[in-house]
Amino acid sequence: MAVEEIALQDLDPEAFIDEKVREIAAAVGDGTAVNALSGGVDSAVVTLLGHRALGERLRTYFIENGLMRKGEPEHIREVFAALGVPVEIVDARAEFFAALRGVTDPEEKRDKGITQVFYKDVFGKLVRDSGAKFLLQGTNYTDVEETVAGVKRQHNILAQLGIDTQAAYGYQVLEPILPLRKSGVRAVGKALGLPEEIYSRPPFPGPALAARVIGEVTPERVALVREATAIVEQELADSGAFQYLAILHEDRVTGVRAGRRDFGRQIEVRCWDSTDAVTAEPTELPFATLRRIADRITAEVPGVVSVTYNVATKPPSTIEAV
Amino acid sequence: MAVEEIALQDLDPEAFIDEKVREIAAAVGDGTAVNALSGGVDSAVVTLLGHRALGERLRTYFIENGLMRKGEPEHIREVFAALGVPVEIVDARAEFFAALRGVTDPEEKRDKGITQVFYKDVFGKLVRDSGAKFLLQGTNYTDVEETVAGVKRQHNILAQLGIDTQAAYGYQVLEPILPLRKSGVRAVGKALGLPEEIYSRPPFPGPALAARVIGEVTPERVALVREATAIVEQELADSGAFQYLAILHEDRVTGVRAGRRDFGRQIEVRCWDSTDAVTAEPTELPFATLRRIADRITAEVPGVVSVTYNVATKPPSTIEAV
Repeated sequence: MAVEEIALQDLDPEAFIDEKVREIAAAVGDGTAVNALSGGVDSAVVTLLGHRALGERLRTYFIENGLMRKGEPEHIREVFAALGVPVEIVDARAEFFAALRGVTDPEEKRDKGITQVFYKDVFGKLVRDSGAKFLLQGTNYTDVEETVAGVKRQHNILAQLGIDTQAAYGYQVLEPILPLRKSGVRAVGKALGLPEEIYSRPPFPGPALAARVIGEVTPERVALVREATAIVEQELADSGAFQYLAILHEDRVTGVRAGRRDFGRQIEVRCWDSTDAVTAEPTELPFATLRRIADRITAEVPGVVSVTYNVATKPPSTIEAV
Repeated sequence: MAVEEIALQDLDPEAFIDEKVREIAAAVGDGTAVNALSGGVDSAVVTLLGHRALGERLRTYFIENGLMRKGEPEHIREVFAALGVPVEIVDARAEFFAALRGVTDPEEKRDKGITQVFYKDVFGKLVRDSGAKFLLQGTNYTDVEETVAGVKRQHNILAQLGIDTQAAYGYQVLEPILPLRKSGVRAVGKALGLPEEIYSRPPFPGPALAARVIGEVTPERVALVREATAIVEQELADSGAFQYLAILHEDRVTGVRAGRRDFGRQIEVRCWDSTDAVTAEPTELPFATLRRIADRITAEVPGVVSVTYNVATKPPSTIEAV
């Protein structure tokens, strides 16, 4: 791998910020750059690094792909407005759901459904229209490692796979946080002045809620997992865990409501202890918390009759299900 | 409902046994009867009641449907041989798997795949060949209630649904434990001299492991859930829980083994606290037990990368998944 990891204990956040701001400024010169802000800590840190380096010559987009958390686009725009960074919301829901129609294979979902639409159609068009020649990306060290190992294709990692974005998509990708793992990214985010709510946020996958729907990703199915995700994030916000999430299964299971059979849906809850996402253990949550989450999900998310909690480690599991 | 429930506190096991033995003897007269022993407490109690009433005029079959626990047919024959009750093992694996081929709908699985094959083809043929006009059945009160309510079709409950077994299948069904729930059946089993291993056994569904495979039931998929079931039953034998089981999901989830992606299987573990199976709570198992079960299942059951634990109640869940 061409990139050297910077371990948390070796990281000087202020020095790292200075170095990356200089590098971005030097690379872009007097040109312009764009970046996509997802609301996760990775892209949030990249947005602030880019803004420090380029000021108004960085255009930051929030792509509303229909796959984000509840109320996310507006919330993120407000948070960054308070930091002096303008964020443009781009409604691309139709494009994403059209590309995801009928797709059930996980890799195809990530590749065709997310990467292709994101880079080529939606974001590629934004970059071309903007005239910018540089794209800032929040790829981190764990993403690279897993993609190179063939575990999972991260949507933001084309160069590492030998894909020439200049030739393929018409722009060059800059990845300032490539040497960092999640803990390092959080430390840099804090030093950059991000609110704690953002820098300590549980990781959210690149393909967003599409990674948390087993089987076909439709607006209706995303709406279900979005509700379940909101409940899990509310109930586990103070858990101290590395990441927590809800997954909508495709399997149906027999249930009973009001004394009648109700052939229903299942939601799986995962909550992970980890420092770097490379290995992870399921968090030993209080049983009462798990029971409360299950009661809320079965009561509040339509058609759900069954809720499970993951008890396997990574490996052999992975953090997300898709 | 025509049958009156006998609650555990009102049950005198010895008096119940005397009454049912007299009833069976009176109904069968000098004829013969047959019954199918599955190894569960319900059919075990019925076998001993029938044996007391009829002696050698009861023929007891163990139908090897390919869907039972590991080593079950031989083990059950030995247990009953020690009680003086001969059990004939009938190999019907081919018939069951042929009927289950391509069937994924839960009701169809229970109905076509299990009830029809069991009553009409396999067991019906045994009864016809034996010349017996009576069939002893282990239907209990909860089975009746759930079938009448439309929650789930129990495979041993035709008369309650208005199906005339005399006309449809050529024999009459006797159901001596119909007034009892599981706790009552266990008390009667103990009084009959069943070994504790049998009378305190966790319930096992009529459709056997077919009820624990989501999607198509094939010999290969049953073999996987059988291994997982053996692990769960070993690890939870001392849990004091009402019932514990493993379910093989049809959904595939992303996993990682030896640093490479391994798109794998998921096993769900359920463990229930209940007195009557009508309502049930997930058991608060020690987290170390759940982790050990997950480690064993991912290590010992081929292709499994993910293990979950049910945390929803019944209702809205049910005890089994199919």
